[in-house]
Amino acid sequence: MAIRVIVVGAKGKMGSETVKMIHSDDELQLVCGVDSALNGTDVGEVIGLGPIGAPFVNDLERALTDFNPDVMVDFTTPQSVKRHAQLAIHYRVRPVIGTTGLTQADIEELSQLAEQNKMGAIIAPNFAIGAILMMKFAQMAAKYMPEVEIIEMHHDQKLDAPSGTAIKTAEMIGEVREEHRQGHPEEKEELEGARGAFYQGFPIHSVRLPGLVAHQQVIFGSEGQTLTIRHDSINRTSFMPGVNLAIKKVVKLERLVYGLDKLLDE
Amino acid sequence: MAIRVIVVGAKGKMGSETVKMIHSDDELQLVCGVDSALNGTDVGEVIGLGPIGAPFVNDLERALTDFNPDVMVDFTTPQSVKRHAQLAIHYRVRPVIGTTGLTQADIEELSQLAEQNKMGAIIAPNFAIGAILMMKFAQMAAKYMPEVEIIEMHHDQKLDAPSGTAIKTAEMIGEVREEHRQGHPEEKEELEGARGAFYQGFPIHSVRLPGLVAHQQVIFGSEGQTLTIRHDSINRTSFMPGVNLAIKKVVKLERLVYGLDKLLDE
Amino acid sequence: MAIRVIVVGAKGKMGSETVKMIHSDDELQLVCGVDSALNGTDVGEVIGLGPIGAPFVNDLERALTDFNPDVMVDFTTPQSVKRHAQLAIHYRVRPVIGTTGLTQADIEELSQLAEQNKMGAIIAPNFAIGAILMMKFAQMAAKYMPEVEIIEMHHDQKLDAPSGTAIKTAEMIGEVREEHRQGHPEEKEELEGARGAFYQGFPIHSVRLPGLVAHQQVIFGSEGQTLTIRHDSINRTSFMPGVNLAIKKVVKLERLVYGLDKLLDE
Amino acid sequence: MAIRVIVVGAKGKMGSETVKMIHSDDELQLVCGVDSALNGTDVGEVIGLGPIGAPFVNDLERALTDFNPDVMVDFTTPQSVKRHAQLAIHYRVRPVIGTTGLTQADIEELSQLAEQNKMGAIIAPNFAIGAILMMKFAQMAAKYMPEVEIIEMHHDQKLDAPSGTAIKTAEMIGEVREEHRQGHPEEKEELEGARGAFYQGFPIHSVRLPGLVAHQQVIFGSEGQTLTIRHDSINRTSFMPGVNLAIKKVVKLERLVYGLDKLLDE
Repeated sequence: MAIRVIVVGAKGKMGSETVKMIHSDDELQLVCGVDSALNGTDVGEVIGLGPIGAPFVNDLERALTDFNPDVMVDFTTPQSVKRHAQLAIHYRVRPVIGTTGLTQADIEELSQLAEQNKMGAIIAPNFAIGAILMMKFAQMAAKYMPEVEIIEMHHDQKLDAPSGTAIKTAEMIGEVREEHRQGHPEEKEELEGARGAFYQGFPIHSVRLPGLVAHQQVIFGSEGQTLTIRHDSINRTSFMPGVNLAIKKVVKLERLVYGLDKLLDE
Repeated sequence: MAIRVIVVGAKGKMGSETVKMIHSDDELQLVCGVDSALNGTDVGEVIGLGPIGAPFVNDLERALTDFNPDVMVDFTTPQSVKRHAQLAIHYRVRPVIGTTGLTQADIEELSQLAEQNKMGAIIAPNFAIGAILMMKFAQMAAKYMPEVEIIEMHHDQKLDAPSGTAIKTAEMIGEVREEHRQGHPEEKEELEGARGAFYQGFPIHSVRLPGLVAHQQVIFGSEGQTLTIRHDSINRTSFMPGVNLAIKKVVKLERLVYGLDKLLDE
Repeated sequence: MAIRVIVVGAKGKMGSETVKMIHSDDELQLVCGVDSALNGTDVGEVIGLGPIGAPFVNDLERALTDFNPDVMVDFTTPQSVKRHAQLAIHYRVRPVIGTTGLTQADIEELSQLAEQNKMGAIIAPNFAIGAILMMKFAQMAAKYMPEVEIIEMHHDQKLDAPSGTAIKTAEMIGEVREEHRQGHPEEKEELEGARGAFYQGFPIHSVRLPGLVAHQQVIFGSEGQTLTIRHDSINRTSFMPGVNLAIKKVVKLERLVYGLDKLLDE
Repeated sequence: MAIRVIVVGAKGKMGSETVKMIHSDDELQLVCGVDSALNGTDVGEVIGLGPIGAPFVNDLERALTDFNPDVMVDFTTPQSVKRHAQLAIHYRVRPVIGTTGLTQADIEELSQLAEQNKMGAIIAPNFAIGAILMMKFAQMAAKYMPEVEIIEMHHDQKLDAPSGTAIKTAEMIGEVREEHRQGHPEEKEELEGARGAFYQGFPIHSVRLPGLVAHQQVIFGSEGQTLTIRHDSINRTSFMPGVNLAIKKVVKLERLVYGLDKLLDE
């Protein structure tokens, strides 16, 4: 039997992608969408799918009680997400939260609530499963091949370098790699900056060019061999396999899991 | 205190690389080399390192008893390797076996012997740690991104296609991926062979060119993103980090482990 | 002084991209757009740029005479493109034609017309300059490094394999490469298709995965080295640098040039 | 009929590779090797090929006169190379010079000598044809796609960064690219060095890892697309196709050509 899902924020960019993803998977069923400004209209008609038999409901509490959902997916705002999650757990509907903005204290509080109620719950700031796997593998590889460099490549309108993903990857590598400065001790930069930015002794390089979107490779070297882990992302649909996974996993959990990477071990 | 190691077959290609690797790691100490035709000569002098203070011994049993080793590394022949391993366990020296040719029954027998004696032992047909990691990551990724293709690339003197590593990788992916034919159902090859060789419905491509050595990439695709895991190998020294790891792990084991990949979880 | 341009078909997909490109380049000036259903309205307003001071004109002849253009860019239909080109040359406005569907005879006829009038004209079936460069470089490299394989990679909804670009590349390589079968003479496919599709003795491999768009690499190998030429394309804007180049080149020509690759030599 | 070749410095590293290359090509014939300390011995026997029917001669002048060669290949020393070239031209044998150390004045002088005698001559500081092609293509591409970054990757024992090849490539690109600073004007390095070393406004990144040998990629980006040119080199044999090309080209020349890249246009 299909997992019954409601999507809060179903009209938004991520929300409507989620509706499309659910609609195309026989193991999932959208029972309603939630949007304060819409009521009764078919969700599919609003987002351009044509009628799909699931209405918009303008009140979350009613969606949670009248439609008998198993899972609530939330892509809304930092202001409302905490209350949404509390309500869902209260009505024994497992929350899958992609909205960012929850504090450490919020997460802790929701985690206790989930545990008391033996309910599954998932909060994930990044649903791009390929990126999550890249970071996880990079951390695993660093234990055995501690000489590493990161090359991240983005479009040339990006302001910050290195990217957030590169820094997150570097931190995860740093947790398992004994800190040491790479390269020959007498290495010399003829042009300053050539060897990149050093994080705990290993370099990160940032490439910015038109025609690129969001790419990263992590290269590990040891005697006679290199291992490269690379992720290429071209658009927002890349988050959907991660949301799909979260919906299917959360119904089997009895506690809150933070971060899609933790989910991969379950 | 350094781990005391003897190398059986220390004069051979893999054996002498192993001696060099041990010599360059402060946590390891070579106590003697074993070669039936040499006795008393310094191992380092024979293999071109200069004197290193460890002699050749022409009798394995004497090496195991008189030199108080913790670990025996064996790169010899299929004919002798089983007896070597039995002897080592008997004298409470942990074997690390890179020699191929042991049967399934041999491995089973040695495994029971190790377990009875609560002794660590490692048998690994492939010590290239980067290749092992590539295969392991590929298997992990296939659970979440089941659309996959393998491209392996070797020098143009190679006779078999796909490579053994590609087939082994495909088998490991096959263990976790639900079998299905990839590509569009009405896909058409204008030139036969373009879509590669299919293994359980996913393609493997073999590139053969002068200037290549041994390379493989495994590419996973899902909506809006791809994840690529790539290994490049240029020579035999690529096996040494794996041998190093095995020596350091085997002293902490109380049973036999087959395959370097299993070791990565310990 | 800026080159004065009119765009025929300015409301269409390629036409409106062309308008945006012209608008963002100080060396070019859009003087009007041509569309049979629009007259007087600002082109920028119609395509979402806001007013840019260039009106739509519903008659090509009037656009060519009243607006004093240097160049006419045409992205319209196979039915009308020939007459458009003839008219442009008649009024001494150089045509840049991206519309496909002209026959060999049409091209010949327009070529003679351009020559008689000592007018520049450009017809290009493919304006993706990166792809054009990839094919040109591949042909140049094949003279010196005749061992080559092509790997093309596209999304998994593509029906034909190999791609048209891969076949065009292979043909261009075939023009300069002495035909011979690559790989070891005793090479053996353990799984059929592993070595790809052979074109004049060299292999082409087609990868199809979700998350890919349109990519191709051409790999040349010779002793101790490989040379790789790779093109990655993610959307239609990739044609604009080629259109830009054509506009700037056509004003210096006194004859018709067919194919953007020919233009690179001018 | 095969081109008759003598190799000066046939016992050295590059010289003996050259002998092997000539021996394996039916269009070339080694007539003798020159080495001041050897006379009469078969060249093949000295370098491990077995007898090949070409003797060592201890006097260059005698080799040039008695053996009727078409081409002289010289891999010797900066001290002697100029005199060798002069002698060769005097006896109407075309020189192919791989020895480095000739001054600009020397090259000028030899160039005039070749011209007066209507003789072909080639001097090339780098014979790696793949690297030469990479640099040439990079320069050609920069005209049409001026947004570019270079990533060069070498083993971690290399002292200088960027590599000489990267700097040479950057200079060649600089000759055709209008200087401008790439990246967003308000781009900010969170970690210093992330954006690499800037040469005339475009970045160069240097990666140093064990397991790498000598690799470089030049990435060009424009709207919606990227073009990548990559060279991977693993050893000294990579120079032989370039030497082979030079021998075959020099017999058709009537002047001196400096640099293998110039040769590609002939």
